[in-house]
This record gives sequence, structure tokens and C-alpha cells, in this order.
Amino acid sequence: MAFNLFPKEDKFFDLFEAQAESILKAVRYYKELTELGRFDEISVQKMHDFEHECDSNTRMMLELLNKTFITPFDREDIHELADKLDDIIDRLYSAAKRLNLYKITGVHEDLIRFASYFEDSVIAVGRALKGLRSLKQKAAIYQACAEVKRIENQGDQLNDAIIGKLLEFHGDAIEFIKWKEIISDNEKVLDDCKDSVKVIESILVKQG
Amino acid sequence: MAFNLFPKEDKFFDLFEAQAESILKAVRYYKELTELGRFDEISVQKMHDFEHECDSNTRMMLELLNKTFITPFDREDIHELADKLDDIIDRLYSAAKRLNLYKITGVHEDLIRFASYFEDSVIAVGRALKGLRSLKQKAAIYQACAEVKRIENQGDQLNDAIIGKLLEFHGDAIEFIKWKEIISDNEKVLDDCKDSVKVIESILVKQG
Amino acid sequence: MAFNLFPKEDKFFDLFEAQAESILKAVRYYKELTELGRFDEISVQKMHDFEHECDSNTRMMLELLNKTFITPFDREDIHELADKLDDIIDRLYSAAKRLNLYKITGVHEDLIRFASYFEDSVIAVGRALKGLRSLKQKAAIYQACAEVKRIENQGDQLNDAIIGKLLEFHGDAIEFIKWKEIISDNEKVLDDCKDSVKVIESILVKQG
Repeated sequence: MAFNLFPKEDKFFDLFEAQAESILKAVRYYKELTELGRFDEISVQKMHDFEHECDSNTRMMLELLNKTFITPFDREDIHELADKLDDIIDRLYSAAKRLNLYKITGVHEDLIRFASYFEDSVIAVGRALKGLRSLKQKAAIYQACAEVKRIENQGDQLNDAIIGKLLEFHGDAIEFIKWKEIISDNEKVLDDCKDSVKVIESILVKQG
Repeated sequence: MAFNLFPKEDKFFDLFEAQAESILKAVRYYKELTELGRFDEISVQKMHDFEHECDSNTRMMLELLNKTFITPFDREDIHELADKLDDIIDRLYSAAKRLNLYKITGVHEDLIRFASYFEDSVIAVGRALKGLRSLKQKAAIYQACAEVKRIENQGDQLNDAIIGKLLEFHGDAIEFIKWKEIISDNEKVLDDCKDSVKVIESILVKQG
Repeated sequence: MAFNLFPKEDKFFDLFEAQAESILKAVRYYKELTELGRFDEISVQKMHDFEHECDSNTRMMLELLNKTFITPFDREDIHELADKLDDIIDRLYSAAKRLNLYKITGVHEDLIRFASYFEDSVIAVGRALKGLRSLKQKAAIYQACAEVKRIENQGDQLNDAIIGKLLEFHGDAIEFIKWKEIISDNEKVLDDCKDSVKVIESILVKQG
């Protein structure tokens, strides 16, 4: 530490990586829920705890930003990146709440598939964030970002396939509405991951 | 005035308080509508007038911002706060328009309950805005912000309770859709109030 | 060129105008689709190509922004304008995708009407963008912006009229949901046009 000229820069990277870890924990817990088909009050409460942990990471990030004069990237980019990461967990929490609200029970393959996408995507987001610490390996960061976008694309296709099935085999209109919203929540988690790496890419572009 | 070194700062606070007043007038009129169960063209037109008044407050705020060199807070925070306050009234107007569009008639307890929440929340937003003028009583501002967040939370719970009832007792799917959207409008008014005080809190954090 | 002191400024205007042209091409192709009632995979693919072209315009704009020191307007306004224009084409692409996803066939007068609004609105957006190059004719720019807002208003009215019809004559609830979403996509294209000219107006205000 004594030899580090910019100790506070490190702190930013620490916080971003901590956030990626917290989100990944939440995603893995959520994936378990889909595998168990358990969307009860207790699961929602636990998801709320994860969301709370991430909120507190975000707050620490913004506080650090406010008291730091020289930042590793543009202040507004750090702010936006912190916000976009926060959106991921907020959306995941909403998805879990809705499953409980709509009294969804049982194991649904499509939900598990989406949850796997979440896991893969958040791991790739974490990789991109880690890369920011030393920009020597830009290619690796771009690759992680491309992975997140590829998964978002898969999510879009999965979304459309599910809507297609719902339109074909629906019985009850209310079931259709409920599932359409659930699937939309899921797709948007991947959108939020993509939005996060878009900020990372724009940081890379500025670093020239 | 002659002794005020920063007369323009006062002007910002005047405009923010005027905006809080305008929004509160609109909310109180909307609350009356819910109590009367009157969502006709005339009510929508009147809500539109309120929205127009708020728009003009917002415009004055942005014009003042553009011609003021030294601002009481970060320019972007003032801009964002003005935007978020504008979102509250836009959403309220949308809610009123939808009630008319969906030909809702009669008195609905849930709508009155939401309207009371709007009133309480907007009063608290106004209190937080007033506090910005002199930052001596930060605790009071934080308290007002906490109140807004508490009410938003109540709104979330009310939303979920109503959706629960709709799922249980619905007859017609289209009634379900209509009410789900109406309730979502309502919940989002409170979200917009919360977003406004989040900007206020971030201003407080920066003032150290 | 040799006599131009700010060659890079020109480049910004070139790119904005190119973007307006690309969006207009997409809108005209989409309008054809509504006239033919053809919302198949091939049409969606072609819309995707247009969206891709616009994305690449946006990227060039942001890259130019990053490597340009003196910009014709505030950097953040250029960034926001580029984003808002990009939103128009993204939304149009979503609209086309949904028509295919929901297996809509046949010619629908309301869709053609909306498509005409898109065309008129995007032409007016293009006129406003062209005006930015030389700010001598502010009145003409404001007029183009007003035109975009007027059309957005017409779109709102068309939206409400269609929802009214759907509520009155719907048979199937799922048909109702599908069309409500399609119409909402359409209305939002015009909203995105309006958001674009709002940025242009705020640029004009700042130029005093």
C-alpha cells in the first residue's frame, strides 16, 4: 500500500468486484429457487436481503465517488456503472417477488434456463469489471462484454419462443398475462447486464 | 434582497417550492376525483391544466439553470431534481387519463387509499425541498425523505394486495388487465416521489 | 475544407443527418410492410439490418465525440441526442418484431395511420437536425420541433381511440392484450421522436 500512488483507485475496483460477487450470490440463490420451484415469502425475504447488500455496495461506491478528487474513469461513468449494476439486482428481486405474488409453483424448465443465463451473464460481467483494474488486457474485457451481449440475445430468443408457446397453447388469458410478465422480468435482467457492459465498453473507448 | 449575495440561489428554491405546491394542488384535485368517482373528460382536462402549470415551472427552472453561473448545487443535480418532480405530475396525469380511457366509474376504496398516499408523499417531498434552502437542519430533510420512502413501501404492499385480490376474484380477464394497469400507474406515482427524494439525498451527501 | 476552421463540427452534423436519413429509410420500409400486411421473418431481418446501420451511425458519433476536444454543443447534449435518435429505431424494430411474434397478418388501417405519422415525424426530426448546422434560422428549427410534438399528440389520440374500440368490440382477451401492446409500441415511436426534439430545443435554449 505504501507504494501505491492512487490507493483510492484500488478502492473503486474493490467495490465493483464486491458488487459483482454480491449479485452473483443472489443469482445463484435465485437459480436454486427455480430448481426447487419455491417462490414463497421466505425466498422473497432472502432475495430482499441480497438486494439490500447490493444497495449498500452501491451507496459505498457513490460515497467514495463524492469524496474522491481523482477517479480512475470519468465520474459520470462510474456513477452510471454503479447504477446499472444496481438495476440488475433490483430487477432480479422484482422477478422473485412477482413469482410469489402470482403464486407460481412447481418447476418450470424455462425459468431454470433463464436463471442459467443470468449466472453465465453475471459471471461475464464480473470478468469485465475485473479487467477494468488493469487495462492491459482490453481484448479480454471486450470478450467478456461480447459474451454478455451474446447471452442477452439468447434470452431474447428464449423470450420469443416462450411467448410463441403461450400464444399457441394458452387456455386462460390471465395465465397468459401472468407468464408474459414473468418472462419479461427475466429477459430484462439480461438487458440490465448488457446495459452494464455497454458502460464498460464506453469507458474502454474513452481510454483510447 | 439588497443584502443577499446570491439572489439567484433564492430563485431556485422559490421555483422548487412553487413546483411542490403545484403538484400538491394537482394531487388534491385528483384525490377529490377518486372520492367522487368522477373520471370524465372534464376532470382529465383539469388535470391537464395542472400538468401544464408544472411543465411551465420546470421550464422556468431549466431556463434559470442555463443562465446562472453559480448554482446552489451541482447543475446536473438541479436538472435531475427538476426532471424527477416533473415525472410525478406526468404520471399522475397519465393515471387520470387512463381512468377515463378505461371508463372506470364509481368510488373505489383502493384508489382513494392510493390518493391519500400521494398526498402524504407529496407533502413530505415539499418538506424535503423546503429544507434544501438552508441546510442547517439536515436531520429534518432526511426525515422527510425517509417518510417518502416509507409511503412508497406502503404503496408496494397495497399494490400487491390488490393484485392478489384481482387474481382471486376476477371474473373477466380484461377487467383484470385494466385494473392491473391502473394500480401500476398508482404505484409508480409513489416511485416517482421516491426518485425525487433520492436526488435530494444525493445532494445532501455531496454537501458533506 | 482548407478554409474551414472547424472541420470536425461539420462531421457531427454530417453524422446526425446521416442518422436521420437511415431512420427515415427504415420508417419507409416499415410503412410498406403495414401497407402489404407483411410481418414475416424476412421483414424482421430487413428491419434488423436498418437497426444495425443506425447503430453503426451512433457508434461513429460517440467515437467522434470521444476524440473531439471542441464540440459544436455541450458534449452531454450530443451524447443524449445520439441516444434518443437511436431509441427511435430500436423502438421501430421492436414494433416490427412484435408484429411477427404475435403472428399479425393482413392490412390494418390503424397501423398504416401510425406508420404515416412516423414518416411525417421523422422527416420533421431530420429538418430540425439539419437546422442545427447553422443556427441562423432558429424559428425554422422550433417549427420542426413543434411539428414533431403535434404529431406525437395525434398519436396519443389515435392510441386512445384504438383502445376505446378494442374495449368496446373485443372478443378474445388475448387479442386485446396483443393489440394493446402493438399500439403501445407505435405510440412510443412518436414519443421517442418527441424526446429527440426536446434535446434539440434544450440545445437551442443554451445557445441563447
